[in-house]
Amino acid sequence: MLKNYKLIIAYDGSNYGGWQVQPNSTSIQELMQKAIETIVRDTITLIGSGRTDAGVHAIGQVAHFKIEKELDLKKFSHSLNGILPIDIRVLHVEQVPLDFHSQRSAKSKIYHYHIHNHPVQNPFKRHYSLHIRDKIDISLLQQAASLFVGKHDFTSFANESHQGCAAKNPVRNILRLDVVQDGDDIRLEFEADGFLYKMVRNIVGTLLEVIKGRRSLDDIPRLLAARDRTQAGQAAPAHALFLHKVKY
Amino acid sequence: MLKNYKLIIAYDGSNYGGWQVQPNSTSIQELMQKAIETIVRDTITLIGSGRTDAGVHAIGQVAHFKIEKELDLKKFSHSLNGILPIDIRVLHVEQVPLDFHSQRSAKSKIYHYHIHNHPVQNPFKRHYSLHIRDKIDISLLQQAASLFVGKHDFTSFANESHQGCAAKNPVRNILRLDVVQDGDDIRLEFEADGFLYKMVRNIVGTLLEVIKGRRSLDDIPRLLAARDRTQAGQAAPAHALFLHKVKY
Repeated sequence: MLKNYKLIIAYDGSNYGGWQVQPNSTSIQELMQKAIETIVRDTITLIGSGRTDAGVHAIGQVAHFKIEKELDLKKFSHSLNGILPIDIRVLHVEQVPLDFHSQRSAKSKIYHYHIHNHPVQNPFKRHYSLHIRDKIDISLLQQAASLFVGKHDFTSFANESHQGCAAKNPVRNILRLDVVQDGDDIRLEFEADGFLYKMVRNIVGTLLEVIKGRRSLDDIPRLLAARDRTQAGQAAPAHALFLHKVKY
Repeated sequence: MLKNYKLIIAYDGSNYGGWQVQPNSTSIQELMQKAIETIVRDTITLIGSGRTDAGVHAIGQVAHFKIEKELDLKKFSHSLNGILPIDIRVLHVEQVPLDFHSQRSAKSKIYHYHIHNHPVQNPFKRHYSLHIRDKIDISLLQQAASLFVGKHDFTSFANESHQGCAAKNPVRNILRLDVVQDGDDIRLEFEADGFLYKMVRNIVGTLLEVIKGRRSLDDIPRLLAARDRTQAGQAAPAHALFLHKVKY
């Protein structure tokens, strides 16, 4: 009888072309699928909750695959981490009902964007956060962030995918966009029912323009209404973005 | 008139042969000295509070140099960070009295050794902490650590330096060796009036043998009394060690 296995995965995306299989770069999905196939001695299809771009990290990516074989979960997880490179780790494996789908069953996703706000960059954070030298006005950042919360058409903040197609429905519901300050670190916590392609990084790019004084708060509702990608800010760098959790 | 400048420096030691000038590898001291010479257009001697080994990191290394020129501190610090590679950052520069010496004036030094204690390694900590899979008995680790505190002859825990000479006086006073737990992370905080060559890593190596059950607590006073490097544990890996602070 077919069984369905759910994996929770952490990865340092620095050295990869993203989650999804892409030409001319190594994808994490591809590496993991091959590693699983080596262990289970069968072909499988590993489906992730969604792609993360080149350079984006994950603490709690979720994926699933189906197979006839009954797996010894502890042994399987141990073997998989033995095969995988050290910058990709399987944190948890469990058997789930057959109708569980890592992408379609997801209720919401949480992304974190890390900013290090200090006159001098911290060398230990350089691969995992965006360094901003000038003091950020947290209250302004919070006000700007709050304007994105709720159900909106996010066309202005979505890139076309590599396949050249935009999402059929560009409406997403941002449940929260919290600005969390921890000393010199600022974390933007996004939770939404789903995200369009590059949506988090494009929103962060626009928030950065607001805190740098290049845009006013009034621009945000205007940009949302415009439904035109060319009007909003550039995507913020990938290396500071983490897929934190997928909720089911 | 000669002026004395004190620098506080952070560096990711991963890509360097250590603080001190050494043949066949790039030292941080050498890189910094050259960068300073480029800016001040003069030859200087940059003296650090002590060397850190290849691969060891620093959050608060201290160094000083003397020069006739009056420096604009903000401008100098900015130029220096502009020349230095991104994994070395000058956090602070100030003018200090002429008799200040980064090594000789130091009252105590603090080193932190980072352990990640979890069945699966966290990919984001792999360059900066030692991964230990099996659950560590914190109480046992604390008991073992406490046996090193105080004034001891640390010959058993000191390597000969590259120059082939041991320290003339192998007695050091460990003011505290705290075991700080923070979730799955364990931090060993060493504060002493000084450290012999590889002393922190050699002590950690022996502590690891105790928590793995390969040595008993009674071994520690015996090892200290033996004054024989060959009897104590191997040095723990360098990549988990941070020079945290130098107190004056």
